[in-house]
Amino acid sequence: MIRHWIRFQHLDTIRFGTLEGDKIRIFKGDMFDSPRRTDMAVNLNEVEVLTPSVPGKVLAMWNNFHALGQKLGLAPPAEPLYLMKPSTSYLAPGGTIRKPLCEGKVAFEGELAIVIGRRCTAVPVEEAQDYVFGYTCANDVTVGEIIGRDPTFPQWVRAKGFDTFCPFGPVIATGLNPAMLVVRTTLNGEVRQDYPINDMVFSVAELVSRISQDMTLEPGDLLLCGTSVGVGSMRPGSTIEVEIDGIGKLINRFE
Amino acid sequence: MIRHWIRFQHLDTIRFGTLEGDKIRIFKGDMFDSPRRTDMAVNLNEVEVLTPSVPGKVLAMWNNFHALGQKLGLAPPAEPLYLMKPSTSYLAPGGTIRKPLCEGKVAFEGELAIVIGRRCTAVPVEEAQDYVFGYTCANDVTVGEIIGRDPTFPQWVRAKGFDTFCPFGPVIATGLNPAMLVVRTTLNGEVRQDYPINDMVFSVAELVSRISQDMTLEPGDLLLCGTSVGVGSMRPGSTIEVEIDGIGKLINRFE
Repeated sequence: MIRHWIRFQHLDTIRFGTLEGDKIRIFKGDMFDSPRRTDMAVNLNEVEVLTPSVPGKVLAMWNNFHALGQKLGLAPPAEPLYLMKPSTSYLAPGGTIRKPLCEGKVAFEGELAIVIGRRCTAVPVEEAQDYVFGYTCANDVTVGEIIGRDPTFPQWVRAKGFDTFCPFGPVIATGLNPAMLVVRTTLNGEVRQDYPINDMVFSVAELVSRISQDMTLEPGDLLLCGTSVGVGSMRPGSTIEVEIDGIGKLINRFE
Repeated sequence: MIRHWIRFQHLDTIRFGTLEGDKIRIFKGDMFDSPRRTDMAVNLNEVEVLTPSVPGKVLAMWNNFHALGQKLGLAPPAEPLYLMKPSTSYLAPGGTIRKPLCEGKVAFEGELAIVIGRRCTAVPVEEAQDYVFGYTCANDVTVGEIIGRDPTFPQWVRAKGFDTFCPFGPVIATGLNPAMLVVRTTLNGEVRQDYPINDMVFSVAELVSRISQDMTLEPGDLLLCGTSVGVGSMRPGSTIEVEIDGIGKLINRFE
């Protein structure tokens, strides 16, 4: 069964639950460990939607789609290549992506994000799916010009780590087959990215398995699967939307 | 006045306080925001020492010492160059650094770490020191061979992000002048690094100011100042110590 988990603030209290039409069914306990359904519900339009998890870490893949690699003349990598985005970059659905103080164009990158559900270390690929809670939409916002500015040290963490540069949400969808998903990114109403997840170099199970060899993954952690063709920059005043059918639409302004 | 803040577990409770000889004076509240001294004390040898803070993020500098840059033929960078270490890499004093599953030598890098005390964004350099709580010792453990293994994407986060690869502690020293400090790293009793902090390319105040232009820094966050000459690899069974007079000695085993 597909469920849509949402985290929100209502009357000064942070809660979570599942979407039921235009209502939220409230759950208690831990979203990732036997959450308990309650009799309470609130209207979606009466709450402030938060990021659907509070990740201990967000790891973002680079060069994980064949189509983008081919366009850039890059061979598929032999192993997942990733950087990390800081907690101060997390941004809720509806929040405003802020232009940083530095110079440089600010680019959107619509992506599928894997949400880890159970702590795992060095999990075999055939068991990796058991440690995935679900999927959400993410925007791996980037100042591309910073990356190569120093010839000796590519500044990946900095270029993608500014405050508000990691919007994700609006919900975590559970019970989906990720191989069937399509990521669609829209800038001011115009479709700019529309690519299938089954073009990934490393699948969901491979990413979880391989990265868990490097570091323990914990409930709520995100693996951003990387982006594909159609990345572009945003003018202040833009609205950027990352939509994945079966999950929902992550909408943010850029100022 | 110089104080040494320590975080520890005692009888199933996590507490913090200040060192008073071989005792710990227990404080209540928030270490970074008006902690309250109590009448309680415990013996240091009766507690399990924890990492002195639980950072929301750890940013680690690269090429921030003139002596190491000269040795490697690198010009001083125009801006601080940094990567990020995940929370799953944090390791308490006395904890064991574990060899990861991957191949490659595991290197120690003894470093001074700045501990942020107050939330700050885009703070001017002349005010930056006001946002520093204190200083601790850190070991920026690294599998160097991973960094350049893919020709298109240097894997800094991965090479330095394995579980247990970020030991720090044993205490946070407040009231110190960082420019007077010296970092001494000892492998199995033999001094391997012995370098002055005043050789830094970017000073403590410059690091805090410049990085806070990129991202908000929060209480407990660490900025690892980078290492200097004398880095080397460890054999399983080694004891590695990072000592800074005025702070203390961070001791870990490597297995």
